[in-house]
Order: sequence, then structure tokens, then C-alpha cells
Amino acid sequence: MEEKLIEKIMEEVIKKVGAPNIEVARKEKKLCGLTEFVGTGRGDTIGLVIANVDSSVHEAMKLDKKYRSIGIIGGRTGAGPQIMAADEAVKATNTEILAIELPRDTKGGAGHGSLIIFGAEDVADARRAVEVALKELERTFGDVYGNEAGHLEFQYTARASQACEKAFNAELGKSFGLLVGAPAAIGVVLADTAVKAANVDVISYSSPASGTSFTNEVILTFSGDSGAVRQALIAAREVGIKLLGTLGSEPVTDTVPYI
Amino acid sequence: MEEKLIEKIMEEVIKKVGAPNIEVARKEKKLCGLTEFVGTGRGDTIGLVIANVDSSVHEAMKLDKKYRSIGIIGGRTGAGPQIMAADEAVKATNTEILAIELPRDTKGGAGHGSLIIFGAEDVADARRAVEVALKELERTFGDVYGNEAGHLEFQYTARASQACEKAFNAELGKSFGLLVGAPAAIGVVLADTAVKAANVDVISYSSPASGTSFTNEVILTFSGDSGAVRQALIAAREVGIKLLGTLGSEPVTDTVPYI
Amino acid sequence: MEEKLIEKIMEEVIKKVGAPNIEVARKEKKLCGLTEFVGTGRGDTIGLVIANVDSSVHEAMKLDKKYRSIGIIGGRTGAGPQIMAADEAVKATNTEILAIELPRDTKGGAGHGSLIIFGAEDVADARRAVEVALKELERTFGDVYGNEAGHLEFQYTARASQACEKAFNAELGKSFGLLVGAPAAIGVVLADTAVKAANVDVISYSSPASGTSFTNEVILTFSGDSGAVRQALIAAREVGIKLLGTLGSEPVTDTVPYI
Repeated sequence: MEEKLIEKIMEEVIKKVGAPNIEVARKEKKLCGLTEFVGTGRGDTIGLVIANVDSSVHEAMKLDKKYRSIGIIGGRTGAGPQIMAADEAVKATNTEILAIELPRDTKGGAGHGSLIIFGAEDVADARRAVEVALKELERTFGDVYGNEAGHLEFQYTARASQACEKAFNAELGKSFGLLVGAPAAIGVVLADTAVKAANVDVISYSSPASGTSFTNEVILTFSGDSGAVRQALIAAREVGIKLLGTLGSEPVTDTVPYI
Repeated sequence: MEEKLIEKIMEEVIKKVGAPNIEVARKEKKLCGLTEFVGTGRGDTIGLVIANVDSSVHEAMKLDKKYRSIGIIGGRTGAGPQIMAADEAVKATNTEILAIELPRDTKGGAGHGSLIIFGAEDVADARRAVEVALKELERTFGDVYGNEAGHLEFQYTARASQACEKAFNAELGKSFGLLVGAPAAIGVVLADTAVKAANVDVISYSSPASGTSFTNEVILTFSGDSGAVRQALIAAREVGIKLLGTLGSEPVTDTVPYI
Repeated sequence: MEEKLIEKIMEEVIKKVGAPNIEVARKEKKLCGLTEFVGTGRGDTIGLVIANVDSSVHEAMKLDKKYRSIGIIGGRTGAGPQIMAADEAVKATNTEILAIELPRDTKGGAGHGSLIIFGAEDVADARRAVEVALKELERTFGDVYGNEAGHLEFQYTARASQACEKAFNAELGKSFGLLVGAPAAIGVVLADTAVKAANVDVISYSSPASGTSFTNEVILTFSGDSGAVRQALIAAREVGIKLLGTLGSEPVTDTVPYI
């Protein structure tokens, strides 16, 4: 009975104070009756469309004039998962990535949130891109591991597209890998581990003072042949889970690893 | 009995871990016996005065030399409410706004905290400004709506004063409106909704990468005739509550809406 | 029995949602079997070494080429404590401070986390520096006081070394003091209090918009003769505890004050 009570109270608490690295299961899909609303996804991510952005807002947002219809995905927790999901969405639809912005967020966690804007000539394309991205989140959150002290993230694509290019200077059409360690100290070791494990080329190294929005992360991006990129990520993942585990409980993913 | 126990534990928990978007009721006004202390207000806001700032600190703070007495309000949660409250305070007192700074805060939430400094030639004026601002917070937190996934904010003044000018480039003496949506994706739709709902002029558009301290917010400020500004805010508020609600529980205010 | 249940649930809650300003007692030292791992410390701090940093990562990190071995300490909560601990570590070992970076963190709190990198020609030196720094954290967290609304920090060294120089422009070999007040409004009064209490020279004043990573802090650093620096800190500490206490419970340290 005590167990049950604790569980019940934990639910109440998480509802009220939010749970930094724990995805609260969304039991029921909510609808809100607005045409702008597309859906929600992991990481407190919402997907939205605007068929015809007001010209003064369009200008204030400094968007490419070509696109009046925009799709929007943005979440409290996670940048990598949303960017990788957007990358699949631009491949699958007639849209372009107009903006990727990274707030300092994760609801008290160590990382970023995200705001990604797709441009389209037709609102149906914008909507489709948002739908694809929201669906892809289930997969791209697969190699995000968290515990009470931090998080780890590993992302891979065999063929980088516009979102990876815009956010990380990835080369279009090439294999691309990304790793994140938080707290940042762990990320330093993961970066070193990854490049030692396989023949990959470093694209960028970001840290709290440079290339992040002052997150407590080190982020390494790299390219190479498909097998090498994956091998580098797998080696870093193994080390990361051990290191983050020394600061708390065993780091876990809330969904299914894909790498 | 279980209900009562849960309630009791929730109190303990909130006391210990803090409650991001929930204002913990301050049952008793605390005094600390220091002449610098003026009072406290919503959003973990404290109000302070210094009668005669030490010259080396005054210089390090880069304050206008004219003012040796300063009033200070600063909170963990909220920038808009404190700025709007300060705006009323400068109207009502013989003070000037010397500085408005916006930390990335809200105690794990998606937005800003605040640090606002009033200058005065007489410490009584500085103190009065702080008192007015703390009192105004009750009103200016009126249209702040939160749930576990984010927050919304709507502010209006018929006559913008120095704080709105300094923080948002508002034109002095004119009607002024401000809206915030967090996560930022929601703010994009609110911005579009507001300008489509009434004939208002956009002053500024801020987003995670530009114009904020990397918060997960989109902030739109605008002017227009008084009725239009309010109409724009009311339309955005209606949409915002629906959209934020899809990510969690019904967004609520802890005090009384004023718009 | 109710008391015991509350305590038990609090443990569960803190384990799950993390505790912003409360150090969760680490009952058992964890080992992870990796040669890179040195240990952990207060503030979710991890200590690591890399014997021979991969050249491409070394370059991406923009480290001084002279040092192939690095020591790393980084925490979620705290910058001052880790910097002061690193300062003792460079004094005690044959290492140099290569980088100090300050994420916006503290797990939903108002301040920074940290990432500090030691360079050494020999990995044993890097490891020793990390060991010393982790051990010093017990002391340097001594005058960190927190409650649910914010935190205060007071640091002192009779002889500043490289870490204080790099992070705060302290003069090598001189007495050095540092104070932090969060929310920032409190820090303004502490800065004024400190310089009025003793004959000290202001080195730097940092605030949310300048010199911090958008934390909700005011940080003052200063020098002077040893007694004056301590006197300034003691005066500010007394005022700070009173002011922060008006926003919540009595601010406490989790370890033993050293000033």
C-alpha cells in the first residue's frame, strides 16, 4: 500500500513540478480545434502550421520571402532529436528549413530546447513536414539517455539533409554523426572516444562558452563513411553511459535505441 | 486521509525543489531588519534600496552618475510582469529606470527572470518606486498563464513609460502591448494571431536566438490604438491557452486577469 | 509513521526530479572501470583525465598545443566552488589551467555550472590536479548558502593562482574575494555592503546581462589585504542570509563554512 501511495504521489509531483529528463507519458492525444495545430510529440514538442503568415510578422521573423506558409516544431526538451526529425521531414516533403533556433532549456536539465521553421509554398506541404517530424521524434529520441545528473545523446543519419546542414554544417547527402555529453566534462571524453574509435572527420566541437546557448554540454559532430560514423557513436555511447552513471542512477532511454 | 497526506507532502516537495510556474503562497510577510529591504512580491521578487551606493560599485555598475540612491527589484520568475510594474512605478514617482537586465531563469521554466534598477536623487523616491512596483506585480502577473509545459503572457498599458521604452523600444505615452508564448513555437502562432486580429504595428519580435537571453519564448511587442492593442492580445490569449493546453493541463493564472 | 513516509517519498522525489540547491548525499563512491574516470564531487561534479587527447579534438577544443594530457572537472551546480578548487589544484601540481567555461545551469537554480580543463605534460599530473580539485570542493562549497528562492556564495583565498586569474582577472599571489547573490537584486546589495565594510578594491562586477552566462546573479570580485577581504565577505554574508531568507526558508550550507 505504501508503494502504491508513493507512486500516486510521484505522479502528482511530476505533474506539478515537471520532470527534467523524464518523458511524462502522454496518455491521450489532445486536440484543440485550431487549424494551426498539427500535433504534439516527445520532449514537450508541439507541431504547428500557419497557412499565410502575416506580412509584418513574416518580416520581423526575417524569413525567406518565397514562403508564406510555414510549419513549426518546437520543444522544451531536446534540439538534436528535433533537428534530426526535421532532417527526415525535409527529405520527405516539398519544404525548406528556414530557421533553427536553440533556446537554453530542457526544463531545468543541462541542454537545449528547439524552434524549427519549415517554409513551403503550399500549406499542405508545411503540415506534412510537421507531421513527419513529430512522428520521427519517436525514433530520434531513441539514443537519448538521461539520469538525474545529466544526459547523453547520439544521432546518426546515412544521408544528411538541410536541417543537419543548417544546424551543424553537415555536408548534404553524406553520413553524419552527432554526440552530446552533459555535464560538459563527460562530453569532452566522449568526443575523444569517438574520434579514436573510428576514422571520422570532426565537423564541429561545441561547448558551454562556444557554439551552444550556454548549455552544460559538449557536442561533437562528424562525418565519415557510414560504418565509421556508427562505430564512433557506439563507442562513445558505451563510455558515456558508464561515466554519467557515476553521478547517479543508470542512464536510460525512454524509447528504443536506433544506432 | 490519503488526500490530506498527498497535500502535505506536496507542500514539502514544493518547499524543497521549488515550483517552476506555480507561485508558492507567501502566507506571512517576512521582515529582515535591514534598511535596504523593502519587501517581496510574486515571482520570487525582492525589492531593495540603497540610499547611497558606494562609488566603486556605482562605477562598476555603469550607472548614471546623477543618481546615488537606487531602488532595485529583481525576481526569479518573470520579466514582463516586473517591467510593466516598474513602468507604473516610474510614472508614479520621481525616479528613472537606470537598467533592465534579463537573466535566463524562471526556476527551470522556459523564460526570464529580471533585475531592474531605479535611480533617484532621494532615497525616499527610490523606496516609493520599489513599493509601487511590488504592489503592481499582483496586477501584472494577472495575464500570465502556466502549465507544466510552458507559459503565456499578455501585457497592456494605455500609456507606455520609461520601463517599456528601455526594455522594448515602446513609444512614450502610447498604447503598448506585449505577448509571450513558451515554448517558442506557440509564440510564433500567437504573434501571427495578434497582428491579424487587429490593426497594430509590430515594434519587435524576439525569439530564442535573438532578443532574448536564449529563453524558449517568442515575444511580440506592438503599438496601436488602445482598443486594437487589447483586441490583439485577447485574440492571442484565446489561441495560446488552447495551444499550450495540448501539451499539458489547462493553463491557468494564479491571480486575476486584467486585460 | 507519517514523518517517515514523507521522508521516504522526499528521497524518491529528489532522486527523480533532482534537487536544485540541495546536495544529494552520495553514500557510495561509484567506479566505472574506465581509466579516464577519476571521481565525483559536490555539485554533480565529475573529474576525468585523458592521457593523450586525439589531435583533431585537441585542435577543435583550441587547447594549447604544449599539453596532450588534460584533466577535466565539470559540474552541474556551481562555478565558484569548482574554480576555487581548481585554483588550489594548480598550486599543488605541475599543471596549467587551459580553459574555464561557465554554462547556465545549477539544475533549474539561478546560477552557473562549470567546465574546467587542466593541461599537463604527464597524465599523472593531470590526474593529481583533478583529485585535488575534487577534494577541495568539500571546502569550497562551504560558504554556498541556498534556499528554494536562490543562493549566496562567498569565496576567499589568501593567494590567488591561475584559475582565479583566468576566470576573474585576479592578480596572482594576492588575496582575493568573490561574492555571489541570486536572485541578482540581492547581489547588488551584497556588492555595496562588501565594499563599504572594508577597504577592498573592486576587480569586477558581473550581472545577468554582462559577465555571466545570463544567470540571475550579481558577482563581485575584489582584492585587498587578507583581513579586509575576509571582513568584506563576512559582512556581505550576514546581509545576504537575511535578504535571501525573506524569499523563503533560512538559507543553509550543506557543508562547513570556511570564511
